[in-house]
Amino acid sequence: MKVTLYDTTLRDGAQTEGISFSVTDKIRIAQKLDALGIHYIEGGWPGANPKDMEFFKKVKRAGLKNSQVVAFGSTRRAKTKTTYDSVLRALLTADTKVITIFGKSWDLHVKDVFKVPLDENLKMISDSIKYLKSKGKKVFYDAEHFFDGYVHNPEYAKQTILAAQEAGANAVILCDTNGGTGTSEIFKIVREIKEILGVPLGIHTHNDGDMAVANSLAAVQAGATHIQGTVNGIGERCGNANLISIIANLSLKLGVSCISRINLKELTEASRYVAEICNMKQLDSQPFVGNSAFAHKAGVHINAILKNSKTYEHIDPHLVGNRRRLLISELTGKSGLLQKAEELELELDKNASKTKRLLKLLQTMEHEGYHFEAAEASLELLMKRTLKKFKDFFKLEDFRVIIEKQKNQIKSEAIIKLKVGKHLQHTAALGDGPVNALDNALRKALKDFYPGLSEMHLADFKVRVLDEKAGTAAKVRVLIQSQDKTNSWWTIGVSENIIEASWQALMDSIEYKLLKDAK
Amino acid sequence: MKVTLYDTTLRDGAQTEGISFSVTDKIRIAQKLDALGIHYIEGGWPGANPKDMEFFKKVKRAGLKNSQVVAFGSTRRAKTKTTYDSVLRALLTADTKVITIFGKSWDLHVKDVFKVPLDENLKMISDSIKYLKSKGKKVFYDAEHFFDGYVHNPEYAKQTILAAQEAGANAVILCDTNGGTGTSEIFKIVREIKEILGVPLGIHTHNDGDMAVANSLAAVQAGATHIQGTVNGIGERCGNANLISIIANLSLKLGVSCISRINLKELTEASRYVAEICNMKQLDSQPFVGNSAFAHKAGVHINAILKNSKTYEHIDPHLVGNRRRLLISELTGKSGLLQKAEELELELDKNASKTKRLLKLLQTMEHEGYHFEAAEASLELLMKRTLKKFKDFFKLEDFRVIIEKQKNQIKSEAIIKLKVGKHLQHTAALGDGPVNALDNALRKALKDFYPGLSEMHLADFKVRVLDEKAGTAAKVRVLIQSQDKTNSWWTIGVSENIIEASWQALMDSIEYKLLKDAK
Repeated sequence: MKVTLYDTTLRDGAQTEGISFSVTDKIRIAQKLDALGIHYIEGGWPGANPKDMEFFKKVKRAGLKNSQVVAFGSTRRAKTKTTYDSVLRALLTADTKVITIFGKSWDLHVKDVFKVPLDENLKMISDSIKYLKSKGKKVFYDAEHFFDGYVHNPEYAKQTILAAQEAGANAVILCDTNGGTGTSEIFKIVREIKEILGVPLGIHTHNDGDMAVANSLAAVQAGATHIQGTVNGIGERCGNANLISIIANLSLKLGVSCISRINLKELTEASRYVAEICNMKQLDSQPFVGNSAFAHKAGVHINAILKNSKTYEHIDPHLVGNRRRLLISELTGKSGLLQKAEELELELDKNASKTKRLLKLLQTMEHEGYHFEAAEASLELLMKRTLKKFKDFFKLEDFRVIIEKQKNQIKSEAIIKLKVGKHLQHTAALGDGPVNALDNALRKALKDFYPGLSEMHLADFKVRVLDEKAGTAAKVRVLIQSQDKTNSWWTIGVSENIIEASWQALMDSIEYKLLKDAK
Repeated sequence: MKVTLYDTTLRDGAQTEGISFSVTDKIRIAQKLDALGIHYIEGGWPGANPKDMEFFKKVKRAGLKNSQVVAFGSTRRAKTKTTYDSVLRALLTADTKVITIFGKSWDLHVKDVFKVPLDENLKMISDSIKYLKSKGKKVFYDAEHFFDGYVHNPEYAKQTILAAQEAGANAVILCDTNGGTGTSEIFKIVREIKEILGVPLGIHTHNDGDMAVANSLAAVQAGATHIQGTVNGIGERCGNANLISIIANLSLKLGVSCISRINLKELTEASRYVAEICNMKQLDSQPFVGNSAFAHKAGVHINAILKNSKTYEHIDPHLVGNRRRLLISELTGKSGLLQKAEELELELDKNASKTKRLLKLLQTMEHEGYHFEAAEASLELLMKRTLKKFKDFFKLEDFRVIIEKQKNQIKSEAIIKLKVGKHLQHTAALGDGPVNALDNALRKALKDFYPGLSEMHLADFKVRVLDEKAGTAAKVRVLIQSQDKTNSWWTIGVSENIIEASWQALMDSIEYKLLKDAK
């Protein structure tokens, strides 16, 4: 069995609270979806937003090889001739081979929102599809609120999609627009519609009931062959169905073919890439592709995993490009620490006193607020420092940072004194804020000794108050993500002083790079 | 129909990457679950963790009225007499009326992890349950990996739960421990087991396939009456089934009674409270209870919602204690802005030039990186400032912040000059980092004029790099959450200088408080 994947990250996904794509963002996402082998990419609603029209122009030169770009819009307005309708005209201007239009299948919407007679709505659907077909387009029809409509007035809901089929739609997509329909109901309704419709059936679900993925798969099991969703399930309210989870489940669980096995290995990377462009952190717990999806913390689980990975993993993480992680935490105990040491090629004997000391140190620091799970580079440095596996690349004497604001001008300056071997470096630098000034001064002091630092930069910076009750005087945790040409890594600092915490994370980030380059 | 809710936030939830509960945290969560009317609270694994034993001691005096506390552990070890088994003894020491033990239902685990004969495993299950029953306990049996076991060796899987039933278990819980089973398979298997088992059946699912909630509901539809899950779906790897979503779906969709209608209204607050204790932000898109769950951004949606809320809401948000929000964004346009103005009781005419100016200003600022969706207090201030609905409470002349580190000592000092009316305040303060020092100096300068500030504190502080490519010189967005006795509110600042961005958010946070108090 084979199904068609239809991505709407760039249209429905763009409705997510907190997301605002630039045209460049949209092109980059389209290229990633194309590389993944998604069949259709819904690019936006031409006419509703000036950015979207620009996207349709630029995407033609984006070199897409596998995906067809789709323009999205509504049926014609009430009492308008199709030829003069501004929505339909804008759709044609987008100049795509495929167009998706949505129309109303729930009589409540026709009455309360459109305020037109039920018959006129059927004509709006029919006319619009016929018109776009007459222009040589492939037309998909999104039956908005189909499931709610079918429950309230099944006869009318059926009439709307039969009208779409008769007008020549190439597929009819049943939408659970409000996202509140249950899985068994989705299955039942799709199967009933499959009986009366000859044209390919699609499914478009939202996650308001926390069941969007299960609902999409149930629809496939009931006969749908066209599946709409967004990368990472972004979308308005609770989001759309997560296409990443759907692809993994179809391929690895239902044995339904959608993208190639080779492309399946790109799933994790694609999910993270899109999350980055959305400026959202990928959810650690995201099924299949999250950073924690195959991370094991409980001692009994780690013990079992080391004996047979099937004991606590539903699939091999490599199939979707993800990896197993064994976490160090209070709950883990020794076997996790030993496994981590092995990963890092550090010799650590189970019963040695230094193993116990290291475990104790980790537990104390975690108790103080360090979370090495989130900063594996700092964990590696700490383990190597404690086991005396490297000596410091430099030693700080002292620093001073001064920030001055006058009128609308603000200035940050860092003065730093450190030693590299016996050589004393005393220097100063400006920066955009104290951490940046420190970072600049530190690099300036080190650059003659370690030229490799120039290819590394800070990619993300997070600050978290650990104890809300203590207010601004609370302990804070700083996480820094750094990146060079080949890798990225996270480091951590904890202190009641945000600058001290940042400094710890900054130092670790640089030492990790130096250690990596020294190998 | 009525079902039993069994929460395992404090045990399985504690396995979440990044979470580490203190005993106080666990008590506070237990009290919240009790108030919500959850029937059973799994408190931890006594013996596996010293904290857990302390919890069982302290929870007795925590005044729980509705919930029964449950101790969790494994069956006896192989070849051990129950009376001498350390796990069972620790379970009894916890002194609860109810005990849950888990055992192996998948022959692979018995062979590869326990490395004991299949028969011995059946005896371990049977002996352990009989022993705990002989001590007067109510015993629940968690059949770990039941679904995987049933697929691989159905006969053996059945034997394990029949052994538990014969030994006197009060309920048998079928666990999808690896979280990879599909919804239709869960339904089918639960129905088959329901045929052969007389004791109440339970369901415990994980979210590795992105279907934990749908799977739990399918199990209920197939005959399960005991449902396990965690608040917000926290848990190892991809998490457990989200009990919050399950409760809402059972009550509002399936018509299955579990908690009272009045308690249902506490669902949103309970979810946020537990997220806070977990030190994790509640997911904005979390079904039913997330901040965005009923937030509308698309212009057509907002138009329709204003006509009839059913058009884009699957339930009334008040039923679960949540609320509708209409977002201001580039995509919304005027009708959202006008609605927001109405909410704030600001008169704003649809066609006035000041409306257009305000819309334009908001769009420009959003383009620069402000996200007013995430900082509604700053939005309110901006709208009121632009519409000249209040005058500033103070005016900054200049400030200077100095941070010095020497050896292991670090010091931050802020010097500030500002005017309240005609009165010049010039003062200085120390702090834990530059923002805290500024906050302290600012409060010091203002406290004689605005004593209400003393009851407000900073609750959360977030920094986000907006453009990773620019490295440490990138633009940053600072979000500050402030809290007083009755409310909390978010404010925002954006700048290439983290101190300037923090200062903007800090000023807004104080001005919002002063404006609120002035009402």
